Amino acid sequence: DPKLKIFALNSNKPLAEKIAEAVGVKLGKTSVDRFSDGEIRINIEESIRGDEIFIIQSTSAPVNDNLMELLIMIDALRRASASTINVVVPYYGYARQDRKARPREPITAKLVADMIVKAGASRVVALDLHAVQIQGFFDIPVDHLMGAPLLADYFLNNGLEKDAVVVSPDHGGVTRARKLAEFLKAPIAIIDKRRPKANVAEVMNIIGAVDGKRCILIDDMIDTAGTITLAAQALKDAGATEVYACATHPVLSGPAIERIENSPIKRLVVTDSIKLPEEKRIDKLLQVSVGPLIGDAIKRIHENKSVSPLFKNRFH
Amino acid sequence: DPKLKIFALNSNKPLAEKIAEAVGVKLGKTSVDRFSDGEIRINIEESIRGDEIFIIQSTSAPVNDNLMELLIMIDALRRASASTINVVVPYYGYARQDRKARPREPITAKLVADMIVKAGASRVVALDLHAVQIQGFFDIPVDHLMGAPLLADYFLNNGLEKDAVVVSPDHGGVTRARKLAEFLKAPIAIIDKRRPKANVAEVMNIIGAVDGKRCILIDDMIDTAGTITLAAQALKDAGATEVYACATHPVLSGPAIERIENSPIKRLVVTDSIKLPEEKRIDKLLQVSVGPLIGDAIKRIHENKSVSPLFKNRFH
Ligand SMILES: Nc1ncnc2c1ncn2[C@@H]1O[C@H](COP(=O)(O)O)[C@@H](O)[C@H]1O
Ligand SMILES: Nc1ncnc2c1ncn2[C@@H]1O[C@H](COP(=O)(O)O)[C@@H](O)[C@H]1O
Repeated sequence: DPKLKIFALNSNKPLAEKIAEAVGVKLGKTSVDRFSDGEIRINIEESIRGDEIFIIQSTSAPVNDNLMELLIMIDALRRASASTINVVVPYYGYARQDRKARPREPITAKLVADMIVKAGASRVVALDLHAVQIQGFFDIPVDHLMGAPLLADYFLNNGLEKDAVVVSPDHGGVTRARKLAEFLKAPIAIIDKRRPKANVAEVMNIIGAVDGKRCILIDDMIDTAGTITLAAQALKDAGATEVYACATHPVLSGPAIERIENSPIKRLVVTDSIKLPEEKRIDKLLQVSVGPLIGDAIKRIHENKSVSPLFKNRFH
Repeated sequence: DPKLKIFALNSNKPLAEKIAEAVGVKLGKTSVDRFSDGEIRINIEESIRGDEIFIIQSTSAPVNDNLMELLIMIDALRRASASTINVVVPYYGYARQDRKARPREPITAKLVADMIVKAGASRVVALDLHAVQIQGFFDIPVDHLMGAPLLADYFLNNGLEKDAVVVSPDHGGVTRARKLAEFLKAPIAIIDKRRPKANVAEVMNIIGAVDGKRCILIDDMIDTAGTITLAAQALKDAGATEVYACATHPVLSGPAIERIENSPIKRLVVTDSIKLPEEKRIDKLLQVSVGPLIGDAIKRIHENKSVSPLFKNRFH
C-alpha cells in the first residue's frame, strides 16, 4: 500500500501542522529556501518513492513565489517517483482572473491550473474557489471543499443565528449566502449596487428585510475590504442592530485592516486558509481552522472512500 | 504579412528599448503592474491580432515575479490571437538547476521550459544558456546567441589581446574560454581546483603559462563572484601582470560587488542581459549592450533568413 505523506511548503506552515495532526502523521522532512540570487532551492530529505504525497501550499501573497515553490516541489516529487501527487491549495491565487473581462486580458487562473497539471500533479484539493468553474480548468480530479459549514458553526455555537439575516454584499454572491442561510435557518438579503447614471456614485439598494435584525455578511474572500465595509455601513443605516461578516479567505491587502477597524462590523470570521502576519490579527478578526476539514478530506482520499452523505455537506 | 511587434515586460526595459531601436520599431503599448494583493495585472493596450510578437524578458531576480510576468503575457497574447509569440530571454533564470545533482532534486530549468511552451510560446531566443543542453528542454525552436564576440570586441578595441592569455576559472568552462581565445588569437589556461583530501582547502592548480601575461578570465555568469575573485588572486600569485574578467550575465548577488572591489580584477566586462541597480554599477564594471545583437536576430527571424556565415559566429 502506498504510504501517505504530507509536505508543507512555506506559505502556511501552521495550517499544514494542523492538517497533519488531524490526519495523524508527522510532516515530511524537507527544506525549501533560497539560493543567494533568490532562486528557490528545494531539498526533500526523505525517500518518497512509491508514496502517496499531499503538498500543502496556499498561493497567497507573495503569490508568484508561493506558486513557484509549489511547481518546483511537484517537479522534484515526480522525478523522485512519488506514486501520486495531491496538491492541497487552501487559497488559490489568481482566481479572480478567471475570464476575459476585457479584450487582450490573460486568464491567469487557467494558466496556473495548466502549470500545476503540467508539473505533474495527480489531484487538487481546493477550498471555496472564487468561481466553481475553475474546477473545470483542471484535467485531473478536483475536490472542492466548502468553508460555509465551519463559518456557520461559529454563529450557531454563539447563538447568533437568532434574529439573523444572511446578507450577500453583491448579486454574484447570492448562492453562497443561500448556503450559509440554510445552515443557520435564517432568511437572506442582497445588496444590489446600482449606478443611476455614469459618473454618479453607486446607490446601495437592500433587497430583503434587515431593520431590527442581526446581519451576517458573507463573501468568499476579503481583499481590500471596500465592498464588505460599505455594505456593513449600508446595513447599519437601514436599521440593522448588529453587523457580522464572514469569509473563507482573509486576503486583507492594502487598506483592509484599517477599513475593518473603522467599520460597523462587530466581528469578522474567516478561516486560516491564508496565514496572517501579526499586524493583521486584530481583535475584531477571528480565524477558525480548516485543518480538521482538510485532514478529513485527505483521509478519505487516502482510503479511497466515496463522499458520505454527511461529508457531502462539506463539498461543493 | 504579419506585423513585427516588440513588447517589454518589467525586468529590463532599457535593454528592450535598445533592441527596439536596433530593429527600428517602437515598443508595443502595454501596462504590467500589480493588483493590491500583489497579483500581476497585464493590459495589452493595442490590437495584436495576427501579429508576429517578440516579448523581451530576463528571468533575473526577482526571478519568480519576472517568470510569471512572462507566462501571463504569453497567455494574454495567445488569447488575443497573436500569429507567433517569440520569447526573448536574455538571461534565463534557474539555468543552474539543469540536472539532478543529488537524489530528489527538481530540474527547474526543464520545468520553466515546459511552462513557457505550455503557456503558448512559438519560439525562444536565448543568450549564453548556462548549459547548451537546455535548448533541448524546449520542443519549439530555440535560437541560442553568443556573447563572446561582443566581449572579445572590448578587448580588441582596447588593444588588450596582446600578451594575453584567456583563462577558464574551472574545467567546466574550457570550451567557452577556447571560443574567446579564438577571437583574440590568444592561448588559453585553465584553473583546476582540487581538494587534496576531504575537509582540506581546495588547491588552485593553474594549467598553462600565465607568468608575465595579461590574464582574461571568462565565465558565463558572475553570481556571488567567489570563483572569479579567487581565480584572479591565484593568477596574480602566479605572476600575471594584470587580470581582466568577463562574463555574459552579471547576476551579482550577495557579496559579489564587495568581492570584486577587493579583488585584483582590473576590469569586469559584462553585458546588459540583466539590468543592474545603481549600487551595483561600480567603476570596475563595464556593461556592453546585447541590444544590437538581439535586434539583428529578431530582424533575421522576421525575414525568415537563414543564419549567414558571418552571423553564424554569433550563434552557438
Ligand atoms: N488580484 C486581484 N485584485 C483585484 N482585482 C482583481 C484581481 N484579479 C483580478 N481582478 C479583477 O477582478 C475582476 C473579477 O472579479 P469578480 O467579478 O469578483 O470575479 C476582474 O475585473 C479582474 O480584472
Ligand atoms: N541559483 C543558484 N545559485 C547557486 N547555486 C545554484 C543555483 N541553482 C542551482 N545551483 C547549484 O549549482 C550547481 C550547478 O552549477 P554548475 O555546476 O555550475 O552547473 C548545482 O549543484 C545546483 O544545486
